[in-house]
Amino acid sequence: MAKFPEPMARLIDELKKLPGIGGKSAQRLAFHVLRGTEADAQALAEAVQQVKARVHLCSICNNITDVDPCSYCASSSRNQRVVCVVEEPTNIAVIEKSRQYSGVYHVLHGTLSPLHGIGPEQLRITSLLRRVEAGEIDEVILATNPTVEGEATASYLAQSLRRPGLRTTRIATGIPAGSDIEYADEVTIAKAMEGRREL
Amino acid sequence: MAKFPEPMARLIDELKKLPGIGGKSAQRLAFHVLRGTEADAQALAEAVQQVKARVHLCSICNNITDVDPCSYCASSSRNQRVVCVVEEPTNIAVIEKSRQYSGVYHVLHGTLSPLHGIGPEQLRITSLLRRVEAGEIDEVILATNPTVEGEATASYLAQSLRRPGLRTTRIATGIPAGSDIEYADEVTIAKAMEGRREL
Repeated sequence: MAKFPEPMARLIDELKKLPGIGGKSAQRLAFHVLRGTEADAQALAEAVQQVKARVHLCSICNNITDVDPCSYCASSSRNQRVVCVVEEPTNIAVIEKSRQYSGVYHVLHGTLSPLHGIGPEQLRITSLLRRVEAGEIDEVILATNPTVEGEATASYLAQSLRRPGLRTTRIATGIPAGSDIEYADEVTIAKAMEGRREL
Repeated sequence: MAKFPEPMARLIDELKKLPGIGGKSAQRLAFHVLRGTEADAQALAEAVQQVKARVHLCSICNNITDVDPCSYCASSSRNQRVVCVVEEPTNIAVIEKSRQYSGVYHVLHGTLSPLHGIGPEQLRITSLLRRVEAGEIDEVILATNPTVEGEATASYLAQSLRRPGLRTTRIATGIPAGSDIEYADEVTIAKAMEGRREL
């Protein structure tokens, strides 16, 4: 006897393909859909389809967008001469939340990782170099993660971007605001010492 | 500036409605869909729609099914004279896994819970009584959970089902197989003592 009717088993299988969703979770989600209204299920199904149909990458900065260029690249109230380079589109929301930045972005969609076969060609680096070549940029802020891959990517970019009249900067690594030095790891402490500033 | 493009924000909102999926998880799932193939997204969307379109309750036992009657109720190799009453459709898969039962089922879709306004009318009890009235059943096994609500529901059903020639039984409560008495709670121990059998 089959464990569940075929459409139910198929939905559970599809849900299990999602990251972090195991068999039991998939079953719970499928039963939620089954018990919910027709309209709820329709809304979920359509949202999934619309994301694939309407969301693509901005032709300038590679951020995800449903218009082209994206709202950052098209904005006249943002400083189009400063570009912040990030690993993933989700990083942009985090930086925006700080309300400290009013320039534009460039999304790499990953970091250099030779062990995983990811070289400069696999990232959106050519389009960054093209933006810089166009000569309308004063500063590139490298905001990749302070991890081994993120640092390697930042160093690589700093070298590739070296041009007269262009500042290339790296965001600071140090003790997170509001946390306790007691619990900071030694690499973070070393970086915080290295990056100390006159008061 | 909006955090995400509209179709992306909508998918995240729809995913957040699912049980156990918070904001961060919804974002992770939505990005997984965005990065996956068109075919994968289509398969997920269709699976959601098909579940609502094709899965319904068996007219005899109220189990979820895409045919009517369900495969258990339609099976000639199962004992149609023994009915196991369970709270939820998912309980059936667990009982089937034990390979100890070859009768049919009846799904209540809940338990009596006066505090939450769930009385006998809210459960699939009338259809159970109708099956018993038809006179073709020898035994009803009450397999609701050994919780306060499950026990109350079992007692209620045992009374309602009292008829000459019909056995009404309750599954045993006791120490789970393979576990240690050391860690069993006092109610379970008391139930295990109460339910002791001659060897």
